[in-house]
Amino acid sequence: MGSDPAALGHIRDQVGCALRNFLGQQRAVLLATGDELLPGLAALTELLAAGKRLRPAFCYWGWRGAGGADGPPILAAAASLELLHASALVHDDVMDGSDTRRGRPSLHRMFAARHAEQGWRGSPELFGVNAAILLGDLLLAWTDAMFHGSGLPAETLQRGQPVLDMMRTEVMAGQYLDLLGQAAGDGTVASALRVVRYKTAKYTIERPLQLGAALAGQPDGPVPAAYSAYGLPLGVAFQLRDDILGVFGDPAQTGKPAGDDVREGKRTVLLAIARSRASAAQARVIDQRLGDPGLDDAGMAEVREVITGTGALAACESMIGQHVGQAVAALAAAPITGTARAALAELAVAATARHD
Amino acid sequence: MGSDPAALGHIRDQVGCALRNFLGQQRAVLLATGDELLPGLAALTELLAAGKRLRPAFCYWGWRGAGGADGPPILAAAASLELLHASALVHDDVMDGSDTRRGRPSLHRMFAARHAEQGWRGSPELFGVNAAILLGDLLLAWTDAMFHGSGLPAETLQRGQPVLDMMRTEVMAGQYLDLLGQAAGDGTVASALRVVRYKTAKYTIERPLQLGAALAGQPDGPVPAAYSAYGLPLGVAFQLRDDILGVFGDPAQTGKPAGDDVREGKRTVLLAIARSRASAAQARVIDQRLGDPGLDDAGMAEVREVITGTGALAACESMIGQHVGQAVAALAAAPITGTARAALAELAVAATARHD
Repeated sequence: MGSDPAALGHIRDQVGCALRNFLGQQRAVLLATGDELLPGLAALTELLAAGKRLRPAFCYWGWRGAGGADGPPILAAAASLELLHASALVHDDVMDGSDTRRGRPSLHRMFAARHAEQGWRGSPELFGVNAAILLGDLLLAWTDAMFHGSGLPAETLQRGQPVLDMMRTEVMAGQYLDLLGQAAGDGTVASALRVVRYKTAKYTIERPLQLGAALAGQPDGPVPAAYSAYGLPLGVAFQLRDDILGVFGDPAQTGKPAGDDVREGKRTVLLAIARSRASAAQARVIDQRLGDPGLDDAGMAEVREVITGTGALAACESMIGQHVGQAVAALAAAPITGTARAALAELAVAATARHD
Repeated sequence: MGSDPAALGHIRDQVGCALRNFLGQQRAVLLATGDELLPGLAALTELLAAGKRLRPAFCYWGWRGAGGADGPPILAAAASLELLHASALVHDDVMDGSDTRRGRPSLHRMFAARHAEQGWRGSPELFGVNAAILLGDLLLAWTDAMFHGSGLPAETLQRGQPVLDMMRTEVMAGQYLDLLGQAAGDGTVASALRVVRYKTAKYTIERPLQLGAALAGQPDGPVPAAYSAYGLPLGVAFQLRDDILGVFGDPAQTGKPAGDDVREGKRTVLLAIARSRASAAQARVIDQRLGDPGLDDAGMAEVREVITGTGALAACESMIGQHVGQAVAALAAAPITGTARAALAELAVAATARHD
């Protein structure tokens, strides 16, 4: 077991390979337009070199579980989800004004720095943001290019297309609900959980699994239903773990400064639980610190103390345990292949472990 | 002839219908997530209700010219290009900080106003920009949903996919070159023409025609070659007309305040020609006014005088004439159906007429 099971390690390698091949093909297209595009491609290549490849892994095992055979085409189709995810990360960082991603400067900061170094005309910040909007768009468009160029037959891909479409509409809708929640939300645990359902649980786990099943010829029926029963609670557990890591995690492991969620005013489930259990004094700490861009280490320590002191941390850990339990129970009853069942059990642990 | 030929009017109606049907389907998906998404859908529906539908028209006639039969599926596939284009417009307006689009507030301004009216938390401007980034992403993702849900067979769609992919990569690359040109460009006519090639000529005319041809079974050979010979010069002429309308046009017709291109520092071919022919005093006017966000009517009048006085306006009109002539000559020799030849001749006029 542990945080990097064999099933995930193998897929990581194959997905990395497929992405490098795809980016190599795109290089030729971009070069035909102009070699000024190569720094952009280099930045995307670097961004895509990292990542846990969770969505491709769930897509791949969704396919295998539904009886699909191993081979490069399904891995390339699954890898296309990394392009979608990278697009979301690039645009998220713009929207949140985040400085870092995966331990390096975020794309918009990278291009702003390039503009400043070169002494170009206009505002470096605006140039960085605009370049990142365009590169995020390119990644999103490339999702389809890679999916349809995966080598799977046209009829097979057509079966998967509605799931891919649904997945994208849902994640963007979830992100919009998140944005709206920050601006106008009621801050309840129920509201935060609804965002998690669309932005994380469906997007990261349920839909990738069902995409694999649909590609393998099972767009409806007991297999995709079992993938919902496993994927939705596991997705909630995955996001709760992420909430905790965002406040208590080691920046060297998360690739993000601790407290960015709080600084950016993210209404996470963890914070909503803390707020719902807070005394007047504790509530004041959360209300003052949440969304404060100047939040420092001392302020973060106060927030951590409130989250621990209210029992929100323990409640969140307990919810993770319950949800993983539900997911694993659903897996035991799922009408899928034994290999897939074993791999998905490992993935459930890997996606929600304390130190991933 | 005139600015609204029958061929385009018919397609406009059908494309409008197909888009309304598609948006109706998406409404159900969004409602399942939450009814807070309906104002976003309403804004997109309104944005998509307008537009000349040029790219769908070229795609449709590209198909018909290559021998494809009329019918709803090709019109729905062609209409998907309006979603791609609307996505580009929404993100362009964010990148340019434009206040208006098609005579109404741009999407990010609309959502900023909504935020301010409701008295929500945080910055209205940031909320507007973030909502527009997400809605632009949604439109881009919907391009594929609509293309693949058009009713054309999977094998047919698979033939078109590489052209759609190429078109998107090229337009995003062209936009990046445009951004880079504003920041670091040499301001030459050649540089401006290269941006026009990718951002407009290929994206608006050549690739939509070739997408139609590929869907109809002719991804290579004399038909797509003829579409390049017609589409590339026509696309340059189309952009030059747009450059002129951006400076001399009637805002009631263009839907944009006159001078926005100059205010936003767009290095258009028209301005590059004027700059290359300018005296020292005239050059000073361009250099001072280009990219000045506070540019007023008097300043715009000065810019117009330089463009006229240097002969750039006349040179641009002459280039338009030459390029349309090239396009029409290529059309005469194109191995396509007579109906398509006649429609494309009308479209060449409609796309480049003085008062469109």
